[in-house]
This record gives sequence, C-alpha cells and structure tokens, in this order.
Amino acid sequence: MSAHIGIDLGGTHLRGVVLDEATGSIAEELLAVGQDRAPEAVADRLAELVGRLLAAEGAAEGAEIAGVGIGVAAWLNGQTGVVHNAPNLGWRDVPLRDLLASRLDLPFRLVNDLTAITYGEWKMGAARGATNLLCVFVGSGLGAGLVLGGQLHEGATGIAGELGHITVEPDGRPCNCGRRGCLEAYVGGHYLEERVREAAAAGGHAGALQAAGGQVEDITCTALEVAWRNGDPDARALYEEAARWLAIGLGTAIQVLNPDTLVLGGGVMGACPGYRSLALEALHQDCPSAMLHPCHLVPPKLGRLSGAMGAALLAREL
Amino acid sequence: MSAHIGIDLGGTHLRGVVLDEATGSIAEELLAVGQDRAPEAVADRLAELVGRLLAAEGAAEGAEIAGVGIGVAAWLNGQTGVVHNAPNLGWRDVPLRDLLASRLDLPFRLVNDLTAITYGEWKMGAARGATNLLCVFVGSGLGAGLVLGGQLHEGATGIAGELGHITVEPDGRPCNCGRRGCLEAYVGGHYLEERVREAAAAGGHAGALQAAGGQVEDITCTALEVAWRNGDPDARALYEEAARWLAIGLGTAIQVLNPDTLVLGGGVMGACPGYRSLALEALHQDCPSAMLHPCHLVPPKLGRLSGAMGAALLAREL
Repeated sequence: MSAHIGIDLGGTHLRGVVLDEATGSIAEELLAVGQDRAPEAVADRLAELVGRLLAAEGAAEGAEIAGVGIGVAAWLNGQTGVVHNAPNLGWRDVPLRDLLASRLDLPFRLVNDLTAITYGEWKMGAARGATNLLCVFVGSGLGAGLVLGGQLHEGATGIAGELGHITVEPDGRPCNCGRRGCLEAYVGGHYLEERVREAAAAGGHAGALQAAGGQVEDITCTALEVAWRNGDPDARALYEEAARWLAIGLGTAIQVLNPDTLVLGGGVMGACPGYRSLALEALHQDCPSAMLHPCHLVPPKLGRLSGAMGAALLAREL
Repeated sequence: MSAHIGIDLGGTHLRGVVLDEATGSIAEELLAVGQDRAPEAVADRLAELVGRLLAAEGAAEGAEIAGVGIGVAAWLNGQTGVVHNAPNLGWRDVPLRDLLASRLDLPFRLVNDLTAITYGEWKMGAARGATNLLCVFVGSGLGAGLVLGGQLHEGATGIAGELGHITVEPDGRPCNCGRRGCLEAYVGGHYLEERVREAAAAGGHAGALQAAGGQVEDITCTALEVAWRNGDPDARALYEEAARWLAIGLGTAIQVLNPDTLVLGGGVMGACPGYRSLALEALHQDCPSAMLHPCHLVPPKLGRLSGAMGAALLAREL
C-alpha cells in the first residue's frame, strides 16, 4: 500500500501532507506563497513543497509515494488543467498542469479546493457515509462541493458547486468575479470586512473599530466577531443580514439537490460560531421542512488539514 | 423482452402509454381525472386506465407487461409512496402507494412527473448521451429533473429538483406552496395569468383582454401569447420580466451543477416560443460563459408523451 501527497494551494500559503493510509500517519509541511505570485514562481514553490514532503517521508522510511493531489482555490478545468480564474492569486487562464508537469516527477491531479475539502470530509471527516452531500465553506468568499448519488460531482467541466456566485439580488452588490448580486458578496468574509470598514470610516461599527485598535484598515472578521461577542448592535445587525442571505443560498442548494448531509464550515464560520448559528436558524425558518428534515446539518471535522487531506485522498484515483 | 406501462398523472388528465421496446410500438390512452379528485376516486381512474392499456395491448397481441411507472405532479417520497403535496389535485399526505397496491395487479413505481419527463428526454429524447442534465419545464409552475454523473438524481428522499421553489426575492410574491418569493411565482403560467387578470381588471393588458374575448376571467397564457405576437407592450414587458427571473433561476442551477445539457420546455414555453427566446437571451447575458459554454441548450423532443414515456422507461427498473 502506498502513500499520497496532498497539497492545498491557497492565496497566501501552500499546505502539504503525506498521508500513509496503511499506518494512518500524516506528515505536514507549510510554505508561504511569497511575494512573487507569477504562475511560474508559485509552481516552483509547489515543487519545493513536494520535495520537502518527499524528504520528510524518506526520512521516516515510509511507503512509496504514488501520486500528488493538488487543491486550488480557483475555477479550473480538471480535464485541461487550465486555471481560468484564481482571484486570490490574481491568475487568469494559467496552464497550471503544464507548468507542474515539467517540475514534478510524480503523477498529479488538479482539483478545486472545495472539491478536495468535500472529498476529505466525506471520506475521513464529518460526512462519512453520506450519499448526497452539500459541503459549504464560508471564508473570504463562499465555495461549495458536492457528492451526489454516492459520487463526487464536479460537473461537465469540473466547475460545479459555484454556489458563491448564484445571483441573490439582481443588480446588487458588486462581486470580485465582475458580476453583481452574487451570494458571496453578501456573506463572504472579504465583503463583510469591506462593509464594516466603509461603515466605520463613516462613524459606524464602533465595536469592530475598537477591537481593531482604532484603525479602520485593520478591521477584519476577527474584530467584527469580538464586537459581536461584546454585544455591538452594528455587528449583530450585519451578521443577521448576512445570515439571512446565507440561509437563502443554502436553501436554494438544498431545494435543488435534496441532500442527506450539509457540512457548513470555513474560516469565517469557524471564527464566529454565532454567524453559523444565525444562518442555521434562518435556514430552519425559510426552508420547507420536507427538504430540511432529512438533511443532517454538521460542522466540518478535519480543520486546517481538510483541503490537503482531501487532495491526498483524491490522488489515490490517479 | 417485455413491455411497460407508463402513466402521467396530471391535474386534469391521466395519460398512459404501453411501450414495447422490442418493437418500438407505443399505444396511448387518455382519461380525464374527472370532478371527484378524492385520492380513492383518482386511484380508481388510474386502475381503469391501466385496464384499458392492458386490453389494448392484449388486442395487439403484444409482449407481456412487466410493470407500471407512474409520474405524479407532486412532492412525493418514492420510498414511502406518500404524496406530501399535489397542488393540482389538492392532495396533502396521501398514501398513494397503498391506494394503488390494492387496485393494481402489476408491480408499479411512483416518481415525480419531472423525474419521469427528465428520464424520458434522457433515454429517448433531446438529451440522449448527456451525463449531467438539467431538465426544466415551465407550465403552470416550474419543475426540474436532474441526471448527474450519468445517474438520475432524485435526492435523499426523492424530492430533488425543486428549482421552482428557490427564493429569488425575499418576502416577494406569494406562492401556492405557502411561502413567498419562489421562482415559480415569477415565471409559471398560473402566476402570469393571475397578474394579467389583475392588471386587466385595472385597465391594463388590453391585448390579452381582447384576445380573451373581453372577459378578464377567460385570460390565459394563450391570450397573453396572442397579445405578445400582436406587439402588445404590456405582454412584452411581462414576458421580459419573467424571462429575467427565469434566467436567474436557470443560471443558479447551472452554477451549482455545471451541466452539459439543459432541456428547457413545458406547456407555457411551448405555447410562447418568444418567452423561451427571451429567457435564453437573458441567460447568455447573466451566466458566466465558462459555465454556459459547455452546456447544450435544447428544447424537449417527446412532446405530450414525455412524462408517460419516461414513466414507462423507469418501470424497467422495477
């Protein structure tokens, strides 16, 4: 039985694991993406990380590495290996597979980061045994992964699960994708921070401003969460509004898919459990019980390693 | 090789076919639901229709009938055979399987009508060869069926595809389901007729009113379509508005599922090809091309028989 490498390529860090299924051992390495986000430079960093993981594995005299799974926070075509849009890295139409093919000596597979997270939670995490799984992560933006009919569902060109970019308000708030009124623009951490900074500059959100040391530009979701815990009414109102939108988005996916399990997590959810509770409360009010009743609502289990672990598990199918 | 019966149980009619796959022959029978819509009475009518189809088949000396597929315009649980809600029949929590078990001597299977239509279009119609299919029918309301990863997707409890009841406008127009702001309430024929009648009573929609012989209560989608063809501006404005909402709903499902094929049809679409064109135009404006480009947009092929044919094909799996 062989081991697999899994890598989570995010906007700021590359996180890698070696997963040895026979022993259950997991080795972990972390590398900053660095200042140079040119595709070639990031491909170099990724190859460096794989080298480190191989060395760590070699030192441990582990099993042979059979392949590498790479989860990327991007719209990518798994068949062509082209990254159409990776906003965190500032990439458009990058031929990542070609860039990696000349740098890695192992077979590898590129997947969307949420696909990797979903697969990880399905195989080893909170959604073991699910047949129809909706996995939604709210971080800077909002991403979703799907298991349908007992199979990972990536869609016709590997870009299924773009729940963050469904239109919830025609001609609504601008989204980084270039369109308007996307769900993500109402519920993602990046957009919440933007709104709090705007409001704070105009005299609002005193609690978040205070938690950020009085500097508008230092306001993050962490500051917003502190303000919420301290009972700040602006923080509460913003989370309540975001939670209602999030419930609409979750309800939409549930009505279309009729899943047996919803995993709801992500950095912004993890940092503010109250936000998650408000969203689930709103979901119970909005969504027909015939749809919601058969659906188990659970938080994720694999924590910071979910993306890398899922990618390693997906590398088994190379 | 045996033949199968398929039945489409709608709000006004029961349409049945005998499909003999060996010969490709199709026998068809139609029966009115009648005034008495009590579950027992309708179950009697359904058994009568099966009897007629068996007699027709016997007269033709065809193959043995192996089973019956029944598509119902309803929220139903395929596992328990309970119809939770069939608005066209006025049913709530009707144990249809039990009612039919005592009336039919053949093995049978209950499915949602859109599931049957989708399966029919997938196996014998416009979506042959699709792996990820979204099938949307706009009639009185809006229903959808799904094939995902090469399998019919009915969801955890058989009620997937409720695209008609996603929320497109929080606290928006009332829907027959009891909630507000559902997609169906903006795009379905029942709701369009309701709005035209309201507006006509207040002096608007002169074209539709004229096409209905001057009687507000006689205004239907057919009258609206005539008005549209005659260039009535109110008819045009209403279809344009409905088309924009429909495009948002279709775009939402496409973003979540990344299908290779979208079949868009239904009675209201069929009666007004202009409505369909406007909706596809709006979809091309709204939906990211990376999602839309890989998706073939096609009209259905099986016409009035699609539901019964699909139900007969699904009876093969009994």
